[in-house]
Amino acid sequence: MSETHEGNRDDVGKVYLVGSGPGDPGLLTVKAKRLLEEADVVLHDKLPGPEILGMIPDEKREDVGKRAGGEWTPQEYTNKRLVELAEEGNTVVRLKGGDPMVFGRGGEEMVVLANNGIPFEVVPGITSAIAGPEAAGIPVTHRGYVSSVSFVTGHEDPTKDESAVDWEALANTGGTIVVLMGVGKLPGYTAELLRYGMDPETPVALVERATWPDQRVATGTLDTIVDVRDELGIEPPAITVIGGVAGQREQVVEFLEGA
Amino acid sequence: MSETHEGNRDDVGKVYLVGSGPGDPGLLTVKAKRLLEEADVVLHDKLPGPEILGMIPDEKREDVGKRAGGEWTPQEYTNKRLVELAEEGNTVVRLKGGDPMVFGRGGEEMVVLANNGIPFEVVPGITSAIAGPEAAGIPVTHRGYVSSVSFVTGHEDPTKDESAVDWEALANTGGTIVVLMGVGKLPGYTAELLRYGMDPETPVALVERATWPDQRVATGTLDTIVDVRDELGIEPPAITVIGGVAGQREQVVEFLEGA
Repeated sequence: MSETHEGNRDDVGKVYLVGSGPGDPGLLTVKAKRLLEEADVVLHDKLPGPEILGMIPDEKREDVGKRAGGEWTPQEYTNKRLVELAEEGNTVVRLKGGDPMVFGRGGEEMVVLANNGIPFEVVPGITSAIAGPEAAGIPVTHRGYVSSVSFVTGHEDPTKDESAVDWEALANTGGTIVVLMGVGKLPGYTAELLRYGMDPETPVALVERATWPDQRVATGTLDTIVDVRDELGIEPPAITVIGGVAGQREQVVEFLEGA
Repeated sequence: MSETHEGNRDDVGKVYLVGSGPGDPGLLTVKAKRLLEEADVVLHDKLPGPEILGMIPDEKREDVGKRAGGEWTPQEYTNKRLVELAEEGNTVVRLKGGDPMVFGRGGEEMVVLANNGIPFEVVPGITSAIAGPEAAGIPVTHRGYVSSVSFVTGHEDPTKDESAVDWEALANTGGTIVVLMGVGKLPGYTAELLRYGMDPETPVALVERATWPDQRVATGTLDTIVDVRDELGIEPPAITVIGGVAGQREQVVEFLEGA
């Protein structure tokens, strides 16, 4: 399905925007695993987790995540580096935790690649927004009592006025709400959901390092979950799942195995 | 992480609730592929698609989908069969299209297994709700202009009053809306979204048989997409993606490769 591009581009490499899944190497896709083996260069941050990053030979790894000193590599640098490496003829994997387009900035990278005439492909990954609840015995939808599920990010870009999360509308959907990167702002958005009329008894679960060997699950209600978080010291990365489905864990956890 | 169960259960098998992903065998997870090889029995319907079903030896396949005559196998039969096969000591894979807990009735199967004392594990799959848009060059979220994404099913259970989809709330989230199994009811829910104030110019895309070799993409707006569907004869299985992100396809499709 490759297309013909404008003249003198025969030597250009290809970029794969690849999701690593939540961290368990068994949850890489067959295609992602093959591409990690075949790529010339893998640009990544820390989100894929130690087990998956450990599978990539050091000589092909380029870390574009947090730098020494705690600063993030600017997105502009990553964009430029993707174009540069492809123009040098490399097969490049841009590896992202979870899925590349679920709060992963993959949308921006697609546009940069297309604008620079670089052929690319998107390889989806298992998002922790779905796998995290599952690893805790929680289905994100449930026939008979929940007909929608919404994913939001707890890390809102404060410069975005227009696209700020509308917690009132989310509360009104009646569906499951999954918050990614939502540990730090848990007090803020649980208060918003209560303010917009959600039942304080609504079950809530936090899944820390979902599918990693040291995964932890904490459960409570909209009313209690902040205290539970504080008592157990739940830290990022973690997902928050809010809704009746979160109560299902109790019913099944005795027989739930695996990560 | 296996647990000790009550007496005389040492010979009981285990059930894996496994997502097949959207249909491309490369989008199976490494673990799903291994389990398909190792399982004694694979219970499946048609949704995983011909390529993945073709990988399973005939002697381990049990079809619990549509029967000759067009009737669906009742969920109660599938539940009973899962328990029965595990009690006979089999390693059982219950293979579902996409992810087992995203409108897949996996939540119910978990409860049945736990109630019958059958150990089980959930193996997430790539949902077409995310991979479908990606295969069309559409990111489900986009930094700077969309902060949430909601998944709903177009196949509402008409007996469910309480949990019917709240299209007004979904329209108000301002986020991307992805409708699974929503080809047939497209006229109904696009009308609802317009009625609740969504811009008729909102981009909409339909992705038919996402990631299959014969994938098709159709694009329009909330106002035009029903006509587009009819002109092109888009049929299930397909997903509908509604929101500004659907407009990104145009910008990137020239350089988008792969399924």
